[in-house]
Amino acid sequence: MGKGRLEAFSDGVIAIIITIMVLELKVPHESNLEALRPLVPIFLSYVLSFIYVGIYWNNHHHLLQAVRNVNGPILWANLHWLFWLSLFPFASGWMGENHFAALPVSLYGGILFGAAIAYYILTRALIAHHGKDSTLAAAIGRDFKGKLSLAFYALAIILSFVNPLVAFAIYVLVAMMWLIPDRRIERTLAP
Amino acid sequence: MGKGRLEAFSDGVIAIIITIMVLELKVPHESNLEALRPLVPIFLSYVLSFIYVGIYWNNHHHLLQAVRNVNGPILWANLHWLFWLSLFPFASGWMGENHFAALPVSLYGGILFGAAIAYYILTRALIAHHGKDSTLAAAIGRDFKGKLSLAFYALAIILSFVNPLVAFAIYVLVAMMWLIPDRRIERTLAP
Amino acid sequence: MGKGRLEAFSDGVIAIIITIMVLELKVPHESNLEALRPLVPIFLSYVLSFIYVGIYWNNHHHLLQAVRNVNGPILWANLHWLFWLSLFPFASGWMGENHFAALPVSLYGGILFGAAIAYYILTRALIAHHGKDSTLAAAIGRDFKGKLSLAFYALAIILSFVNPLVAFAIYVLVAMMWLIPDRRIERTLAP
Amino acid sequence: MGKGRLEAFSDGVIAIIITIMVLELKVPHESNLEALRPLVPIFLSYVLSFIYVGIYWNNHHHLLQAVRNVNGPILWANLHWLFWLSLFPFASGWMGENHFAALPVSLYGGILFGAAIAYYILTRALIAHHGKDSTLAAAIGRDFKGKLSLAFYALAIILSFVNPLVAFAIYVLVAMMWLIPDRRIERTLAP
Repeated sequence: MGKGRLEAFSDGVIAIIITIMVLELKVPHESNLEALRPLVPIFLSYVLSFIYVGIYWNNHHHLLQAVRNVNGPILWANLHWLFWLSLFPFASGWMGENHFAALPVSLYGGILFGAAIAYYILTRALIAHHGKDSTLAAAIGRDFKGKLSLAFYALAIILSFVNPLVAFAIYVLVAMMWLIPDRRIERTLAP
Repeated sequence: MGKGRLEAFSDGVIAIIITIMVLELKVPHESNLEALRPLVPIFLSYVLSFIYVGIYWNNHHHLLQAVRNVNGPILWANLHWLFWLSLFPFASGWMGENHFAALPVSLYGGILFGAAIAYYILTRALIAHHGKDSTLAAAIGRDFKGKLSLAFYALAIILSFVNPLVAFAIYVLVAMMWLIPDRRIERTLAP
Repeated sequence: MGKGRLEAFSDGVIAIIITIMVLELKVPHESNLEALRPLVPIFLSYVLSFIYVGIYWNNHHHLLQAVRNVNGPILWANLHWLFWLSLFPFASGWMGENHFAALPVSLYGGILFGAAIAYYILTRALIAHHGKDSTLAAAIGRDFKGKLSLAFYALAIILSFVNPLVAFAIYVLVAMMWLIPDRRIERTLAP
Repeated sequence: MGKGRLEAFSDGVIAIIITIMVLELKVPHESNLEALRPLVPIFLSYVLSFIYVGIYWNNHHHLLQAVRNVNGPILWANLHWLFWLSLFPFASGWMGENHFAALPVSLYGGILFGAAIAYYILTRALIAHHGKDSTLAAAIGRDFKGKLSLAFYALAIILSFVNPLVAFAIYVLVAMMWLIPDRRIERTLAP
């Protein structure tokens, strides 16, 4: 089975998720700076979520480069991962709306954690289909960055009840870590 | 007429349906667990609907694999099927919002029934175009699972007025039945 | 310039328009039949608009079959047409929300009229680029059905102030006329 | 890395942005002309924003024609540009909702400015990857129109506090300037 439609469908879902998150920025009825102030945390939350969804799209794009074809379990692993991404607008909106209160910040970490696990399952399904000696398996490697992220998310979920801003800072830190271009797959694929 | 644009358009519509359903999870203004509680049935309803739309995307993907080209009636049969899918966000939201009350659970079954009939019509339009001896017709076969689903939906529509939770359990059961990978078409297409 | 991205972008916009129209069907807070009753005109309006957008997608699909490549004016003629389509959710929602009152029914006709003019301009831009002796020009022909539709829309816009239901019936009639498969282009392209 | 998915994803995001902007036109509960009057500035704002997003889609389409392949920094430069575009629905809605008051008109200019800078960065990332002697670099050239637009936006941001309508007129003027077909890249690519 070709990978074309999997890519097209994922692109569609991710494009919609990234765009409807902005709808949480409700248009104020007044036109002064005061009216914008309550939107600041929602905007910050939006920026962070945009970056996370952007990182995922980027990584998915890189990952699928090395994929030759897909099967049923891969389609479902991909849908499962998209399900977690689809919860970003809610988690992001709730975190912003409540000015980074403990529980919403913690839930945001839970969604990040779930999405990361789902992405890990997707890579396993791909490796199971392509073989442990495939270019794909070599390109994914031990996935140190992925495992480190999971540890950070778990830490932040707990810390959010101590100090939500520290938890938020951890989310920003992990995003920065991923923004550094991931050359693993590009390197392995290069001649 | 090529099938590319039919696939692309269907992917677009399904991607949007699956994503706007999450908008029913309205962001609460408070940040405690109490604020999340009324969202639980809406979330469960969302999960079920996500799985159903995912199953349809998957089956449509498999189905179109065996399609060589399309004609006018097929385009319309496909649009008719997408119409029923487009009612999922409403039916799902109404069922969750009203904590699985009788009428919304029944209507949800009605939408599932309509979508299943529309999908059946689509397969007939495809077989009419490709011939009864085509790979496609062989791959679709007698479609026992599709017919069984229709019977279950009809049963659930009636039972929802006796006990809506039993009807909901039937919807979950049918979804589970479809989640078991459908190897019919893959098997027939394999060399 | 290839036509691939024009098709992909149009498919995306049309898929979104057709899907967000359903958001006008607001989920009621109660779970009885009374709660569904005010939604009936909105639903009817949605069905008609779904069919019209479906007809346009279908016709656009057929039209682009015969197109070889595109230029700047064609891109803009296409965007202009998509602009009119983007007003469907508003016009459709207003008509349904107000139970087919005179002004909304008239405005709906105005949007249909504008979209039809925009589609006509698009076909002219395509013919100007491909030449009057092209397969495309032959396939479009005199476009009798398109001109007849314009006349009907104009009639309905006026009649909606006399009896909006007559105007609505005319919209249904024109849609039926287009649902009859349009074999013009298919016939001309066939060997 | 191929450019196909970058184009598809950008098309998806732009299609959604251009379509959700229309949701700011909230359906009125009454059916007379009075009910439409408050929507006039929102509609004008929508038309202008539709044209700007259309111009960007057009320019992006032309730009990508000359692109051979992409790398990580290009993907991120593109996402950064899409981020600015995603703020259009908010800025456009706020400007319309407040009848072109000073601050919203100024913010709208700020979003236009940010999007233009982001587009400039994208062209630089593309040139850095393709080389200064590439067809792409030649096609982009000195980008006089892009720099002039930036100056106009900056002027309008300031002038909006003196007279917002003058600032709005500048936005319309710049849009007109871009609507004149941009033949630079088409000319350079032609044999």
